[in-house]
Amino acid sequence: MPIVRVEMWPGRTQAQKRELARAITEVVCNVAHTTPEATIVVFQEIAKEDWAQAGRLASEEE
Amino acid sequence: MPIVRVEMWPGRTQAQKRELARAITEVVCNVAHTTPEATIVVFQEIAKEDWAQAGRLASEEE
Amino acid sequence: MPIVRVEMWPGRTQAQKRELARAITEVVCNVAHTTPEATIVVFQEIAKEDWAQAGRLASEEE
Amino acid sequence: MPIVRVEMWPGRTQAQKRELARAITEVVCNVAHTTPEATIVVFQEIAKEDWAQAGRLASEEE
Amino acid sequence: MPIVRVEMWPGRTQAQKRELARAITEVVCNVAHTTPEATIVVFQEIAKEDWAQAGRLASEEE
Amino acid sequence: MPIVRVEMWPGRTQAQKRELARAITEVVCNVAHTTPEATIVVFQEIAKEDWAQAGRLASEEE
Repeated sequence: MPIVRVEMWPGRTQAQKRELARAITEVVCNVAHTTPEATIVVFQEIAKEDWAQAGRLASEEE
Repeated sequence: MPIVRVEMWPGRTQAQKRELARAITEVVCNVAHTTPEATIVVFQEIAKEDWAQAGRLASEEE
Repeated sequence: MPIVRVEMWPGRTQAQKRELARAITEVVCNVAHTTPEATIVVFQEIAKEDWAQAGRLASEEE
Repeated sequence: MPIVRVEMWPGRTQAQKRELARAITEVVCNVAHTTPEATIVVFQEIAKEDWAQAGRLASEEE
Repeated sequence: MPIVRVEMWPGRTQAQKRELARAITEVVCNVAHTTPEATIVVFQEIAKEDWAQAGRLASEEE
Repeated sequence: MPIVRVEMWPGRTQAQKRELARAITEVVCNVAHTTPEATIVVFQEIAKEDWAQAGRLASEEE
């Protein structure tokens, strides 16, 4: 604990995920007073055809 | 807000997802009195080998 | 299957949840060709102080 | 109800998922006094590059 | 990793949760070849008025 | 998109949640190249009696 889950569109590189994991963990530890070892970050990619806002798929917005 | 998440087996077409997103958003806006722009729908496909009911994988039920 | 999860702010009545469950199930069955018995709808209320957009808590937006 | 969701790294075989589904359903029914038919188990694989602990991706730990 | 999430209706005692956590962890370790320390179990209670099957709230089924 | 979900034990103040939302949104925008308006952060508190590691409830560890 804590567990942080980041849902985002595909396309981020390994380097971006590495930096997101590092920086989010730092923020969570500093603000919520927990330890890095107790902090888990999970990324879940959601394809644009699986994501809709205002009733329209993001894959059809462009 | 709201966020609606639909977990289902693979196999639905883009057209079905488009219609699900449209119709679910319409229902949520009408009943919960929110706006389309504030309503997000996310689809997540779960393979039949990753889904079990009564202790048996759906992929082995057929 | 399918499982539909609706996250929204508190304040909807039992009657609204009943109608959401009924209408979402109808949409899912009609479009995704499944049965009502196989369709589960779960509501999860998120307090405004637990929800942020653009980096600001919804509880402090008003 | 209940719904059990198991997030784990890829690499488990179909046989392991089958046994996990069977045994978890048995435990849940015995302890929580529910029926197998009402118990759903869902597996979600998380790639090591999508999982971080202590701010480091699991894919870069080895 | 793994993370196991159990959604169920309210009413289970602390003793039942303790036994569920113990037994699920044992199953996961035995079958998926992981360690107890790496295995997290989270319980989430869903009220019957927040749960619907076949388009009807569980709170109105009785 | 993105949606960030933070599960943690109860006890964080409104001020801590405000700062977490602000700082996580900043990190996500900087690293993943998205906009603050498109970034949602949701907090979910998990009681210690609903959280287990190594098969033991966190509420019974102290």
